[in-house]
Amino acid sequence: MRPKIYLFGDSITEMSFEDGGWGASLVNHFNRTVDVVLRGYSGYNTRWALKVIEKVFDEETAPLAVTVFFGANDACLPDRCSAFQHVPVDEYKLNLHSIVSFLKGRWPTTQIVLISPPPIDEPTRLLYPFIENKLGLPERTNEVAGNYAKASLAVAAECGVLAVDLWTRMQQLPGWQTACLSDGLHLSKTGNEIVFEEVVEALKKKGLSVETLPVDLPVINEIDPNDPLKSFEGI
Amino acid sequence: MRPKIYLFGDSITEMSFEDGGWGASLVNHFNRTVDVVLRGYSGYNTRWALKVIEKVFDEETAPLAVTVFFGANDACLPDRCSAFQHVPVDEYKLNLHSIVSFLKGRWPTTQIVLISPPPIDEPTRLLYPFIENKLGLPERTNEVAGNYAKASLAVAAECGVLAVDLWTRMQQLPGWQTACLSDGLHLSKTGNEIVFEEVVEALKKKGLSVETLPVDLPVINEIDPNDPLKSFEGI
Repeated sequence: MRPKIYLFGDSITEMSFEDGGWGASLVNHFNRTVDVVLRGYSGYNTRWALKVIEKVFDEETAPLAVTVFFGANDACLPDRCSAFQHVPVDEYKLNLHSIVSFLKGRWPTTQIVLISPPPIDEPTRLLYPFIENKLGLPERTNEVAGNYAKASLAVAAECGVLAVDLWTRMQQLPGWQTACLSDGLHLSKTGNEIVFEEVVEALKKKGLSVETLPVDLPVINEIDPNDPLKSFEGI
Repeated sequence: MRPKIYLFGDSITEMSFEDGGWGASLVNHFNRTVDVVLRGYSGYNTRWALKVIEKVFDEETAPLAVTVFFGANDACLPDRCSAFQHVPVDEYKLNLHSIVSFLKGRWPTTQIVLISPPPIDEPTRLLYPFIENKLGLPERTNEVAGNYAKASLAVAAECGVLAVDLWTRMQQLPGWQTACLSDGLHLSKTGNEIVFEEVVEALKKKGLSVETLPVDLPVINEIDPNDPLKSFEGI
Protein backbone atom coordinates (compact mmCIF):
# COMPACT_ATOMS: atom_id res chain seq x y z
CA MET A 1 0.00 0.00 0.00
CA ARG A 2 2.73 2.45 1.00
CA PRO A 3 5.77 3.12 -1.15
CA LYS A 4 9.20 2.24 0.20
CA ILE A 5 12.55 3.87 0.78
CA TYR A 6 15.45 1.43 1.14
CA LEU A 7 18.51 2.25 3.22
CA PHE A 8 21.41 0.27 1.71
CA GLY A 9 24.81 0.58 3.31
CA ASP A 10 27.30 -0.54 5.92
CA SER A 11 27.30 -0.27 9.72
CA ILE A 12 26.40 3.44 9.60
CA THR A 13 23.17 2.28 7.99
CA GLU A 14 22.76 -0.90 10.07
CA MET A 15 23.09 1.15 13.28
CA SER A 16 20.70 3.85 12.07
CA PHE A 17 17.90 2.68 14.37
CA GLU A 18 19.87 3.15 17.58
CA ASP A 19 18.70 6.02 19.82
CA GLY A 20 18.33 9.14 17.67
CA GLY A 21 19.46 7.23 14.58
CA TRP A 22 18.86 8.71 11.13
CA GLY A 23 16.94 5.65 9.92
CA ALA A 24 14.53 5.80 12.85
CA SER A 25 14.13 9.54 12.28
CA LEU A 26 13.20 8.87 8.65
CA VAL A 27 10.51 6.38 9.71
CA ASN A 28 9.21 8.91 12.23
CA HIS A 29 9.24 11.68 9.63
CA PHE A 30 7.42 9.59 7.00
CA ASN A 31 5.29 7.75 9.56
CA ARG A 32 2.05 7.82 7.54
CA THR A 33 3.47 8.01 4.03
CA VAL A 34 6.43 5.70 3.42
CA ASP A 35 7.86 2.37 4.63
CA VAL A 36 11.55 2.74 5.35
CA VAL A 37 13.36 -0.57 4.88
CA LEU A 38 16.69 -1.22 6.58
CA ARG A 39 19.33 -3.00 4.51
CA GLY A 40 22.48 -2.15 6.44
CA TYR A 41 25.36 -4.64 6.50
CA SER A 42 28.10 -3.87 9.02
CA GLY A 43 31.62 -4.00 7.68
CA TYR A 44 30.60 -4.24 4.03
CA ASN A 45 32.41 -2.41 1.28
CA THR A 46 31.17 -1.84 -2.30
CA ARG A 47 32.87 -5.05 -3.51
CA TRP A 48 30.83 -7.15 -1.11
CA ALA A 49 27.74 -5.02 -1.70
CA LEU A 50 27.85 -5.96 -5.39
CA LYS A 51 28.01 -9.64 -4.46
CA VAL A 52 24.70 -9.40 -2.59
CA ILE A 53 22.81 -6.65 -4.40
CA GLU A 54 20.55 -8.96 -6.40
CA LYS A 55 19.51 -10.75 -3.25
CA VAL A 56 19.01 -7.51 -1.31
CA PHE A 57 16.81 -5.95 -4.00
CA ASP A 58 14.65 -8.84 -5.13
CA GLU A 59 11.35 -6.97 -5.18
CA GLU A 60 9.36 -6.19 -8.31
CA THR A 61 7.75 -3.00 -7.08
CA ALA A 62 9.89 0.12 -7.54
CA PRO A 63 10.65 1.91 -4.27
CA LEU A 64 10.49 5.70 -4.14
CA ALA A 65 14.17 5.90 -3.29
CA VAL A 66 17.28 4.03 -2.22
CA THR A 67 20.06 5.55 -0.14
CA VAL A 68 23.44 4.04 -1.04
CA PHE A 69 25.89 4.69 1.77
CA PHE A 70 29.21 2.88 1.32
CA GLY A 71 32.82 3.97 1.38
CA ALA A 72 33.81 4.08 5.03
CA ASN A 73 35.06 0.48 4.77
CA ASP A 74 36.43 0.76 1.24
CA ALA A 75 38.56 3.60 2.65
CA CYS A 76 40.31 1.36 5.20
CA LEU A 77 44.01 1.64 4.41
CA PRO A 78 45.56 -1.34 2.58
CA ASP A 79 48.53 -1.53 4.96
CA ARG A 80 46.70 -1.19 8.27
CA CYS A 81 44.78 -3.53 10.53
CA SER A 82 41.43 -3.44 8.65
CA ALA A 83 43.06 -4.00 5.25
CA PHE A 84 40.69 -6.88 4.43
CA GLN A 85 37.89 -4.33 4.01
CA HIS A 86 39.91 -2.03 1.74
CA VAL A 87 38.83 -1.41 -1.84
CA PRO A 88 41.00 0.86 -4.06
CA VAL A 89 39.33 4.18 -4.84
CA ASP A 90 39.19 3.50 -8.59
CA GLU A 91 37.40 0.21 -7.99
CA TYR A 92 35.16 1.96 -5.44
CA LYS A 93 34.09 4.39 -8.18
CA LEU A 94 33.42 1.56 -10.62
CA ASN A 95 31.53 -0.37 -7.97
CA LEU A 96 29.32 2.62 -7.16
CA HIS A 97 28.64 2.99 -10.88
CA SER A 98 27.63 -0.67 -10.99
CA ILE A 99 25.36 -0.28 -7.96
CA VAL A 100 23.65 2.74 -9.52
CA SER A 101 23.34 0.94 -12.87
CA PHE A 102 21.79 -2.08 -11.20
CA LEU A 103 19.23 0.05 -9.35
CA LYS A 104 18.42 2.16 -12.43
CA GLY A 105 18.08 -0.95 -14.54
CA ARG A 106 15.73 -2.60 -12.09
CA TRP A 107 13.70 0.49 -11.23
CA PRO A 108 14.10 3.39 -13.69
CA THR A 109 11.84 5.71 -11.67
CA THR A 110 13.51 5.21 -8.29
CA GLN A 111 15.52 8.10 -6.85
CA ILE A 112 19.03 7.16 -5.78
CA VAL A 113 20.84 9.08 -3.04
CA LEU A 114 24.59 8.48 -2.90
CA ILE A 115 25.84 9.35 0.58
CA SER A 116 29.57 9.92 0.94
CA PRO A 117 31.54 8.42 3.83
CA PRO A 118 31.79 10.69 6.88
CA PRO A 119 35.06 12.30 7.98
CA ILE A 120 37.38 10.32 10.25
CA ASP A 121 38.77 11.37 13.62
CA GLU A 122 42.04 9.45 13.61
CA PRO A 123 43.08 9.72 17.30
CA THR A 124 39.69 8.37 18.39
CA ARG A 125 39.87 5.48 15.92
CA LEU A 126 42.89 4.15 17.82
CA LEU A 127 40.55 3.52 20.77
CA TYR A 128 38.16 1.36 18.72
CA PRO A 129 40.10 -1.18 16.63
CA PHE A 130 37.84 -3.74 14.92
CA ILE A 131 40.66 -6.29 14.99
CA GLU A 132 44.04 -6.34 16.72
CA ASN A 133 45.96 -3.18 15.82
CA LYS A 134 49.62 -4.22 16.05
CA LEU A 135 50.94 -1.11 14.28
CA GLY A 136 49.24 1.33 16.63
CA LEU A 137 48.23 3.46 13.63
CA PRO A 138 44.63 4.36 12.70
CA GLU A 139 43.10 1.98 10.16
CA ARG A 140 41.49 4.93 8.35
CA THR A 141 42.60 8.53 7.80
CA ASN A 142 40.45 11.58 7.20
CA GLU A 143 42.36 12.54 4.07
CA VAL A 144 41.82 9.17 2.42
CA ALA A 145 38.15 9.11 3.46
CA GLY A 146 37.93 12.47 1.69
CA ASN A 147 39.16 10.91 -1.55
CA TYR A 148 36.39 8.33 -1.36
CA ALA A 149 33.87 11.08 -0.61
CA LYS A 150 35.02 12.98 -3.72
CA ALA A 151 34.74 9.79 -5.77
CA SER A 152 31.19 9.27 -4.49
CA LEU A 153 30.24 12.83 -5.50
CA ALA A 154 31.80 12.32 -8.92
CA VAL A 155 29.77 9.16 -9.50
CA ALA A 156 26.57 10.93 -8.44
CA ALA A 157 27.29 13.73 -10.93
CA GLU A 158 28.21 11.29 -13.71
CA CYS A 159 25.04 9.25 -13.16
CA GLY A 160 22.74 12.19 -12.48
CA VAL A 161 21.62 10.93 -9.09
CA LEU A 162 21.30 12.71 -5.75
CA ALA A 163 24.37 13.22 -3.59
CA VAL A 164 25.04 13.95 0.07
CA ASP A 165 28.58 15.13 0.79
CA LEU A 166 28.77 14.12 4.42
CA TRP A 167 32.55 14.43 4.58
CA THR A 168 32.44 18.15 3.78
CA ARG A 169 29.14 18.90 5.54
CA MET A 170 30.26 17.49 8.89
CA GLN A 171 33.62 19.23 8.89
CA GLN A 172 31.80 22.56 8.71
CA LEU A 173 30.87 22.04 12.36
CA PRO A 174 33.43 23.24 14.90
CA GLY A 175 34.59 20.23 16.91
CA TRP A 176 33.09 17.86 14.30
CA GLN A 177 35.42 15.13 15.57
CA THR A 178 33.28 14.59 18.65
CA ALA A 179 30.20 16.63 17.67
CA CYS A 180 29.37 14.45 14.66
CA LEU A 181 31.13 11.17 15.49
CA SER A 182 30.84 8.78 18.43
CA ASP A 183 34.00 6.73 17.86
CA GLY A 184 35.83 8.65 15.15
CA LEU A 185 33.78 6.89 12.45
CA HIS A 186 30.20 6.14 13.48
CA LEU A 187 27.65 8.85 14.14
CA SER A 188 26.78 10.80 17.26
CA LYS A 189 23.28 12.15 17.83
CA THR A 190 24.22 15.31 15.92
CA GLY A 191 25.85 13.29 13.16
CA ASN A 192 22.65 11.26 12.83
CA GLU A 193 20.58 14.44 12.67
CA ILE A 194 22.75 15.72 9.84
CA VAL A 195 22.30 12.55 7.78
CA PHE A 196 18.55 12.63 8.43
CA GLU A 197 18.26 16.28 7.38
CA GLU A 198 20.43 15.84 4.30
CA VAL A 199 18.45 12.82 3.09
CA VAL A 200 15.13 14.62 3.64
CA GLU A 201 16.48 17.65 1.74
CA ALA A 202 17.78 15.51 -1.11
CA LEU A 203 14.45 13.72 -1.53
CA LYS A 204 12.59 17.03 -1.38
CA LYS A 205 14.51 18.17 -4.47
CA LYS A 206 12.74 15.39 -6.37
CA GLY A 207 9.34 16.19 -4.93
CA LEU A 208 9.40 13.41 -2.34
CA SER A 209 8.25 14.93 0.94
CA VAL A 210 5.57 14.51 3.58
CA GLU A 211 3.89 17.58 2.07
CA THR A 212 3.44 15.90 -1.31
CA LEU A 213 3.21 12.15 -0.64
CA PRO A 214 -0.25 10.63 -0.08
CA VAL A 215 -1.12 9.98 3.55
CA ASP A 216 -2.14 6.46 4.57
CA LEU A 217 -5.74 6.63 5.90
CA PRO A 218 -7.62 9.53 7.54
CA VAL A 219 -5.60 11.61 9.99
CA ILE A 220 -7.12 12.44 13.35
CA ASN A 221 -7.09 16.20 12.77
CA GLU A 222 -9.34 15.76 9.74
CA ILE A 223 -11.84 13.45 11.44
CA ASP A 224 -15.08 15.25 12.35
CA PRO A 225 -15.64 14.82 16.12
CA ASN A 226 -19.39 15.03 15.49
CA ASP A 227 -19.39 12.27 12.88
CA PRO A 228 -16.10 10.35 12.98
CA LEU A 229 -17.29 7.37 10.95
CA LYS A 230 -17.93 9.62 7.96
CA SER A 231 -14.17 9.73 7.38
CA PHE A 232 -14.11 5.96 6.96
CA GLU A 233 -16.89 5.65 4.38
CA GLY A 234 -15.71 3.92 1.23
CA ILE A 235 -12.40 2.72 2.67
CA MET B 1 13.48 -11.87 1.63
CA ARG B 2 13.07 -11.02 5.30
CA PRO B 3 9.95 -11.81 7.29
CA LYS B 4 7.92 -8.94 8.73
CA ILE B 5 6.53 -7.82 12.05
CA TYR B 6 3.69 -5.31 11.80
CA LEU B 7 3.04 -2.74 14.52
CA PHE B 8 -0.70 -1.94 14.37
CA GLY B 9 -2.08 0.60 16.79
CA ASP B 10 -2.82 4.20 17.70
CA SER B 11 -0.51 7.14 18.45
CA ILE B 12 1.56 5.09 20.90
CA THR B 13 2.47 2.98 17.89
CA GLU B 14 2.67 5.86 15.38
CA MET B 15 5.10 7.70 17.70
CA SER B 16 7.21 4.59 18.33
CA PHE B 17 10.05 5.83 16.11
CA GLU B 18 10.68 9.00 18.06
CA ASP B 19 13.98 9.09 20.02
CA GLY B 20 14.26 5.86 22.01
CA GLY B 21 10.91 4.66 20.71
CA TRP B 22 9.93 1.00 21.06
CA GLY B 23 9.39 0.56 17.30
CA ALA B 24 12.84 1.89 16.46
CA SER B 25 14.31 -0.35 19.17
CA LEU B 26 12.62 -3.36 17.57
CA VAL B 27 14.14 -2.52 14.17
CA ASN B 28 17.54 -2.11 15.82
CA HIS B 29 17.14 -5.39 17.70
CA PHE B 30 16.08 -7.34 14.60
CA ASN B 31 18.32 -5.35 12.25
CA ARG B 32 19.49 -8.33 10.19
CA THR B 33 16.55 -10.67 10.64
CA VAL B 34 13.15 -8.96 10.39
CA ASP B 35 11.48 -5.98 8.71
CA VAL B 36 9.41 -4.06 11.22
CA VAL B 37 6.51 -2.28 9.52
CA LEU B 38 4.85 0.72 11.16
CA ARG B 39 1.08 0.89 10.94
CA GLY B 40 0.27 3.35 13.72
CA TYR B 41 -2.75 5.64 13.36
CA SER B 42 -2.93 8.45 15.90
CA GLY B 43 -6.26 8.85 17.64
CA TYR B 44 -7.73 5.60 16.32
CA ASN B 45 -9.87 3.31 18.46
CA THR B 46 -10.81 -0.30 17.70
CA ARG B 47 -14.00 0.79 15.91
CA TRP B 48 -12.02 2.81 13.38
CA ALA B 49 -9.30 0.15 13.25
CA LEU B 50 -11.86 -2.36 12.03
CA LYS B 51 -12.95 0.04 9.28
CA VAL B 52 -9.43 0.10 7.84
CA ILE B 53 -8.00 -3.31 8.73
CA GLU B 54 -8.48 -4.86 5.28
CA LYS B 55 -6.66 -1.96 3.68
CA VAL B 56 -3.87 -2.00 6.28
CA PHE B 57 -3.23 -5.72 5.89
CA ASP B 58 -3.51 -6.28 2.17
CA GLU B 59 -0.43 -8.45 1.76
CA GLU B 60 -0.49 -12.11 0.82
CA THR B 61 2.65 -13.16 2.63
CA ALA B 62 2.13 -13.99 6.31
CA PRO B 63 4.19 -11.83 8.65
CA LEU B 64 5.91 -13.40 11.64
CA ALA B 65 3.87 -11.32 14.03
CA VAL B 66 1.50 -8.40 14.47
CA THR B 67 1.34 -6.23 17.58
CA VAL B 68 -2.20 -4.94 18.19
CA PHE B 69 -2.06 -1.97 20.51
CA PHE B 70 -5.41 -0.21 20.89
CA GLY B 71 -7.50 0.83 23.85
CA ALA B 72 -6.07 4.13 25.01
CA ASN B 73 -8.58 5.99 22.80
CA ASP B 74 -11.46 3.56 23.30
CA ALA B 75 -11.01 4.34 27.02
CA CYS B 76 -11.69 8.07 26.58
CA LEU B 77 -14.68 8.82 28.82
CA PRO B 78 -18.03 9.27 27.05
CA ASP B 79 -18.86 12.46 28.94
CA ARG B 80 -15.52 14.24 28.64
CA CYS B 81 -13.79 16.29 25.96
CA SER B 82 -12.46 13.39 23.85
CA ALA B 83 -15.79 11.54 23.84
CA PHE B 84 -15.75 11.16 20.05
CA GLN B 85 -12.97 8.58 20.43
CA HIS B 86 -14.79 6.58 23.13
CA VAL B 87 -15.82 2.98 22.50
CA PRO B 88 -17.72 1.11 25.27
CA VAL B 89 -15.62 -1.62 26.87
CA ASP B 90 -17.97 -4.42 25.72
CA GLU B 91 -17.68 -3.25 22.12
CA TYR B 92 -13.90 -2.86 22.61
CA LYS B 93 -13.73 -6.55 23.55
CA LEU B 94 -15.81 -7.56 20.54
CA ASN B 95 -13.70 -5.35 18.27
CA LEU B 96 -10.46 -6.89 19.54
CA HIS B 97 -11.97 -10.32 18.92
CA SER B 98 -12.79 -9.24 15.36
CA ILE B 99 -9.28 -7.89 14.81
CA VAL B 100 -7.73 -11.14 16.05
CA SER B 101 -10.17 -13.20 13.94
CA PHE B 102 -9.33 -11.17 10.85
CA LEU B 103 -5.58 -11.65 11.36
CA LYS B 104 -5.91 -15.36 12.16
CA GLY B 105 -8.16 -15.85 9.14
CA ARG B 106 -5.74 -14.13 6.83
CA TRP B 107 -2.54 -15.59 8.27
CA PRO B 108 -3.09 -18.66 10.49
CA THR B 109 0.63 -18.95 11.36
CA THR B 110 1.18 -15.32 12.39
CA GLN B 111 1.76 -14.59 16.07
CA ILE B 112 -0.51 -11.90 17.49
CA VAL B 113 0.56 -9.79 20.46
CA LEU B 114 -2.28 -7.89 22.15
CA ILE B 115 -0.83 -4.96 24.06
CA SER B 116 -3.04 -3.40 26.71
CA PRO B 117 -3.40 0.38 27.05
CA PRO B 118 -0.90 1.96 29.46
CA PRO B 119 -1.93 3.48 32.79
CA ILE B 120 -3.08 7.11 32.85
CA ASP B 121 -1.72 9.93 34.97
CA GLU B 122 -4.83 12.08 35.30
CA PRO B 123 -3.33 15.34 36.62
CA THR B 124 -0.84 15.43 33.75
CA ARG B 125 -3.56 14.76 31.19
CA LEU B 126 -5.14 18.10 32.10
CA LEU B 127 -2.06 19.81 30.68
CA TYR B 128 -2.41 18.08 27.28
CA PRO B 129 -6.01 18.29 26.03
CA PHE B 130 -6.42 17.10 22.44
CA ILE B 131 -9.41 19.40 22.01
CA GLU B 132 -10.85 22.19 24.17
CA ASN B 133 -11.48 20.87 27.68
CA LYS B 134 -14.35 22.99 28.97
CA LEU B 135 -15.04 20.75 31.98
CA GLY B 136 -11.50 20.93 33.31
CA LEU B 137 -11.64 17.18 34.02
CA PRO B 138 -9.24 14.58 32.54
CA GLU B 139 -10.58 12.93 29.37
CA ARG B 140 -9.29 9.56 30.57
CA THR B 141 -8.94 8.00 34.04
CA ASN B 142 -6.52 5.34 35.17
CA GLU B 143 -9.29 3.19 36.61
CA VAL B 144 -11.22 3.09 33.35
CA ALA B 145 -8.03 2.46 31.33
CA GLY B 146 -7.53 -0.51 33.68
CA ASN B 147 -10.91 -1.94 32.67
CA TYR B 148 -9.86 -1.82 29.02
CA ALA B 149 -6.52 -3.41 29.90
CA LYS B 150 -8.35 -6.27 31.64
CA ALA B 151 -10.63 -6.67 28.63
CA SER B 152 -7.58 -6.84 26.36
CA LEU B 153 -6.04 -9.58 28.53
CA ALA B 154 -9.32 -11.49 28.54
CA VAL B 155 -9.48 -11.42 24.74
CA ALA B 156 -5.88 -12.62 24.48
CA ALA B 157 -6.70 -15.54 26.80
CA GLU B 158 -9.95 -16.36 24.97
CA CYS B 159 -8.19 -16.32 21.57
CA GLY B 160 -4.96 -17.98 22.73
CA VAL B 161 -2.73 -15.15 21.56
CA LEU B 162 0.14 -13.36 23.27
CA ALA B 163 -0.61 -10.60 25.75
CA VAL B 164 1.32 -7.68 27.24
CA ASP B 165 -0.31 -6.17 30.33
CA LEU B 166 1.22 -2.73 30.14
CA TRP B 167 -1.24 -1.19 32.58
CA THR B 168 -0.11 -3.49 35.40
CA ARG B 169 3.53 -3.72 34.36
CA MET B 170 4.10 0.03 34.34
CA GLN B 171 2.41 0.63 37.68
CA GLN B 172 4.96 -1.67 39.30
CA LEU B 173 7.50 1.12 38.85
CA PRO B 174 7.65 3.69 41.67
CA GLY B 175 6.74 7.07 40.19
CA TRP B 176 5.36 5.38 37.05
CA GLN B 177 3.31 8.52 36.36
CA THR B 178 6.39 10.37 35.14
CA ALA B 179 8.84 7.46 34.88
CA CYS B 180 6.82 5.64 32.22
CA LEU B 181 4.71 8.43 30.70
CA SER B 182 5.63 11.71 29.02
CA ASP B 183 2.22 13.41 29.08
CA GLY B 184 0.16 11.15 31.31
CA LEU B 185 -0.67 8.87 28.34
CA HIS B 186 2.17 8.57 25.81
CA LEU B 187 5.47 6.91 26.64
CA SER B 188 8.67 8.24 28.15
CA LYS B 189 12.04 6.70 27.32
CA THR B 190 11.56 4.19 30.13
CA GLY B 191 8.00 3.50 29.03
CA ASN B 192 9.26 2.80 25.51
CA GLU B 193 11.92 0.46 26.87
CA ILE B 194 9.28 -1.50 28.76
CA VAL B 195 7.13 -1.98 25.65
CA PHE B 196 10.20 -3.01 23.64
CA GLU B 197 11.28 -5.54 26.28
CA GLU B 198 7.79 -6.96 26.72
CA VAL B 199 7.27 -7.43 22.97
CA VAL B 200 10.69 -9.11 22.60
CA GLU B 201 9.86 -11.39 25.55
CA ALA B 202 6.43 -12.25 24.17
CA LEU B 203 7.83 -13.15 20.76
CA LYS B 204 10.58 -15.22 22.38
CA LYS B 205 7.90 -17.42 23.97
CA LYS B 206 6.95 -18.47 20.43
CA GLY B 207 10.52 -19.04 19.33
CA LEU B 208 10.84 -15.74 17.49
CA SER B 209 14.16 -14.21 18.52
CA VAL B 210 17.43 -12.99 17.02
CA GLU B 211 18.98 -16.21 18.32
CA THR B 212 16.69 -18.38 16.22
CA LEU B 213 15.73 -16.32 13.16
CA PRO B 214 17.88 -16.62 10.02
CA VAL B 215 20.33 -13.76 9.53
CA ASP B 216 20.22 -11.85 6.25
CA LEU B 217 23.62 -12.30 4.51
CA PRO B 218 27.07 -12.99 6.00
CA VAL B 219 27.88 -11.08 9.18
CA ILE B 220 31.23 -9.35 9.47
CA ASN B 221 32.39 -11.43 12.43
CA GLU B 222 32.08 -14.59 10.34
CA ILE B 223 33.89 -13.24 7.30
CA ASP B 224 37.47 -14.59 7.01
CA PRO B 225 39.86 -11.58 6.88
CA ASN B 226 42.25 -13.71 4.80
CA ASP B 227 39.61 -14.63 2.23
CA PRO B 228 36.57 -12.38 2.58
CA LEU B 229 35.02 -13.23 -0.81
CA LYS B 230 34.67 -16.86 0.23
CA SER B 231 31.71 -15.84 2.38
CA PHE B 232 29.91 -14.53 -0.69
CA GLU B 233 30.28 -17.59 -2.90
CA GLY B 234 26.94 -18.93 -4.07
CA ILE B 235 24.92 -15.91 -2.92
